[in-house]
Amino acid sequence: MKKSLDFLYKIQKELSIFGGIGSLLDWDQKTYMPTQGAIERSDQISLISRLSHERFISEELWNHVRKLTDPDVLNKLEEKDQIVVKRLEKDIEKARKIPPDFVEELSKTTSLAYVAWQGARENNNFDRFSPHLEKIVELRKRYCEYIGLPGHPYNSLLDDFEEGMTVEKLKQAFSYLKPRLVEILGKIKDSECFNKQRDVKMNFDAENQKQLCFLLIKKMLIPSDKARLDVSTHPFTTSIGNDDVRFTTNYGRKQPLFAFFSTLHEAGHALYSLGLPKDEYKYTVISDAPSFGLHESQSRFWENMIGRSRNFWKYFYPVLQKTFTRQLRSIDLETWYFYVNQVNPSFIRIEADELTYGLHIILRFEIELALIDNNIKVSDLPGVWNEKMKELLGIVPKTDTEGVLQDMHWSVGDIGYFPTYAIGTIYATQLFHQLSQENPEVYNEIGQANFTNILSWLREHVHKHGRVMTAEDIVKNVCGEGLNSRIFISFLKDKYYPLYGV
Amino acid sequence: MKKSLDFLYKIQKELSIFGGIGSLLDWDQKTYMPTQGAIERSDQISLISRLSHERFISEELWNHVRKLTDPDVLNKLEEKDQIVVKRLEKDIEKARKIPPDFVEELSKTTSLAYVAWQGARENNNFDRFSPHLEKIVELRKRYCEYIGLPGHPYNSLLDDFEEGMTVEKLKQAFSYLKPRLVEILGKIKDSECFNKQRDVKMNFDAENQKQLCFLLIKKMLIPSDKARLDVSTHPFTTSIGNDDVRFTTNYGRKQPLFAFFSTLHEAGHALYSLGLPKDEYKYTVISDAPSFGLHESQSRFWENMIGRSRNFWKYFYPVLQKTFTRQLRSIDLETWYFYVNQVNPSFIRIEADELTYGLHIILRFEIELALIDNNIKVSDLPGVWNEKMKELLGIVPKTDTEGVLQDMHWSVGDIGYFPTYAIGTIYATQLFHQLSQENPEVYNEIGQANFTNILSWLREHVHKHGRVMTAEDIVKNVCGEGLNSRIFISFLKDKYYPLYGV
Repeated sequence: MKKSLDFLYKIQKELSIFGGIGSLLDWDQKTYMPTQGAIERSDQISLISRLSHERFISEELWNHVRKLTDPDVLNKLEEKDQIVVKRLEKDIEKARKIPPDFVEELSKTTSLAYVAWQGARENNNFDRFSPHLEKIVELRKRYCEYIGLPGHPYNSLLDDFEEGMTVEKLKQAFSYLKPRLVEILGKIKDSECFNKQRDVKMNFDAENQKQLCFLLIKKMLIPSDKARLDVSTHPFTTSIGNDDVRFTTNYGRKQPLFAFFSTLHEAGHALYSLGLPKDEYKYTVISDAPSFGLHESQSRFWENMIGRSRNFWKYFYPVLQKTFTRQLRSIDLETWYFYVNQVNPSFIRIEADELTYGLHIILRFEIELALIDNNIKVSDLPGVWNEKMKELLGIVPKTDTEGVLQDMHWSVGDIGYFPTYAIGTIYATQLFHQLSQENPEVYNEIGQANFTNILSWLREHVHKHGRVMTAEDIVKNVCGEGLNSRIFISFLKDKYYPLYGV
Repeated sequence: MKKSLDFLYKIQKELSIFGGIGSLLDWDQKTYMPTQGAIERSDQISLISRLSHERFISEELWNHVRKLTDPDVLNKLEEKDQIVVKRLEKDIEKARKIPPDFVEELSKTTSLAYVAWQGARENNNFDRFSPHLEKIVELRKRYCEYIGLPGHPYNSLLDDFEEGMTVEKLKQAFSYLKPRLVEILGKIKDSECFNKQRDVKMNFDAENQKQLCFLLIKKMLIPSDKARLDVSTHPFTTSIGNDDVRFTTNYGRKQPLFAFFSTLHEAGHALYSLGLPKDEYKYTVISDAPSFGLHESQSRFWENMIGRSRNFWKYFYPVLQKTFTRQLRSIDLETWYFYVNQVNPSFIRIEADELTYGLHIILRFEIELALIDNNIKVSDLPGVWNEKMKELLGIVPKTDTEGVLQDMHWSVGDIGYFPTYAIGTIYATQLFHQLSQENPEVYNEIGQANFTNILSWLREHVHKHGRVMTAEDIVKNVCGEGLNSRIFISFLKDKYYPLYGV
């Protein structure tokens, strides 16, 4: 028993370390690596992935796990060890369902598909991507067969990103959300405010943006000896270790607030990563987030619930105004607050506002489901995409680049990922709602950029659990219920109706 | 045969990739890593080293190598494969001489010793380091027994850094150098010039230093898509891949030209790494430098032979003067040339000028040899150090921090390393001498900061060989002879006597 347990912890430590090394290879590639290093970098990443995967699905590890999950043995373990062993059993059991040949085939297919997608997107030519996507959809269907979770085949895809989430639960949530989001959007579009709103043109220089972002993360209590903010084309966050988290932003985008909001977003991810359990659960499968949705809830919490609130800007708008006096001199706080919350149906998901964002996700979920269900063919996608855009957002992209080709997810094989963005956004609203009930002072604290209590609350109720529970159980524990779209819709109405005089 | 050969290349590829990953872990730790990441980083580095070492000394690899080195088999291989197989056999044979327990003991000892050395140096307290160094010396003596090269035991230490170098050869070189360096230094110290020379106080701001260094490396033909220059406490160069080389400098030191000269030095290393064979020998043991001395020859070539030459400053001094007009307005080129070549016996090796640098190395070589020969005890070191400083440089450090504790090498177990600095310096002079005979235009080219021919010459005569030959054979091939201190001494006399009016 002792021997098996020691082996388990030894391998988990190695796997965690491989994970950290993989993250560094990835982070460096996206931040500082000279461009010509790319080929060797992919060799480096492949080697680490392969070694990691080999260990994870090895007979030796599996035999030790099986010894420990024998009920007679399991009951004699300490609670902490039981949690680790059961978690590990579940993870390995799943990984072992996938034949190594399939892993390789998927990897080769997505390598080619990603390049094809880039070309297709650049040249606005869906046909260049279409055959690759067909193959990916076929492979993903086979994947669903291997995993074989009960219910809808798509459940097996969802489960990789959001354990325990099902088509049934999502359909319930989205069928509640969809008509209501469309309704709120309709009312806003009919309002006088909407028809008067202008796209504000502003240009903030990179150096001052950077200083503001560093002030922001300082206020957010990001510890500078455990995390760093750099620059990359697309912002992201990654953990190299429990005490070494890297996140990025980009000061060169057209949207004047892109860097500020992406920093808020990624810093939310970073705070979560820094708060994961690292004492008894260090170097185990537990020291991680239970789902992508819960990770996203932390970024959306800071970006939306805090960063797009009126109180937040009570503190930060004067700072911003002082930094960019020329551009902001004549804009008052209320106008600014309206500006950062403007609703604007747009083609591109990642540029979407808080209200329409969910519609972009529902569109993708419906398409993914129809693909897995054989209700549509890949070649139909551009048409289907545009119809759904018309239906949900009332606009139709002029090109596939601005439509069906905009996201990289499918090209790398990620089908079932998009819903986690919506789940995260909904969880964020629920968590904030709960926090504000427990501590009504939270609004004043935000108004003073005093985030100490907020961060402690998140650490205590979300971060510290790691993967001891599923995301849904964590949320249930804090809020008394799982995914709840009603709170999200109320929040949107309470925020946007007054804003647009509806 | 085919199977064994394939296995060899597969393992070499893995080992090369591990090497690149290890370099990235190290580079990141010294440049961007948040301080608290250090503990996890050491776990990451340990894992990669362990996996790499395990593969390297594995029975499986050794059996394949032995199959291929059977003369009947070896002769049937292509020349390229023969070179790889023989090189690999030699490397593995050596590594397999060291018992794994010893590797671990040395690693643990040096981890503690490095920390102790830091404390000892900070507190100017040799006694804190002394017991650790005693253990390291004992371990290194055991190491010599394991390796067991012919001749002096110290040969087995030297060989790790400078294959084929021996105590005999070094004694010959240094016994020629030592009295001559002392003699030249004596004449300089007696000169009028020396007694009038002043320590120039200048302060160059970091941003402008940085711009100059980036101009410098552009002129040196460092390709920006394959290399990058960053900042670290101590400058260094490392290869993450054949097409991804990183080097660093430091703009914050007191010495106004520290960043400039260290950039020249490290860029020399970087150009060598970028020039290593990467077509047929990619991902093999051949795609590396044959010795530390030869690597150092490339850095010293750029730093000393080019960067401290009159012609170099014909181009760069006007640029420097334009950048730092206030500080340099009243200083003419000739005064500046004297300034960058001033001789000044100093306590610290890494601050030493071109002339006295060799004496610092000879001092360390004599001490290391005496330690291995049991002619002195570790506890005698501070006294011995100071005596030798008096004898060689005519000055005595007031503290051990400025004396015997200044270098980290011994604390990490590196005994036998220092001579490579002298070897590199001597080789650099020989190479430049040869180049100037083959292409007398080189001086004009340097005066125009046109380094195209110089780099091609180095690529062709040094870089491209990798480890196909030893360092000495590479130098012999180019210059017609191995290590030759006479050329170095002539060079010093030709340069310094006119400079000091001797």
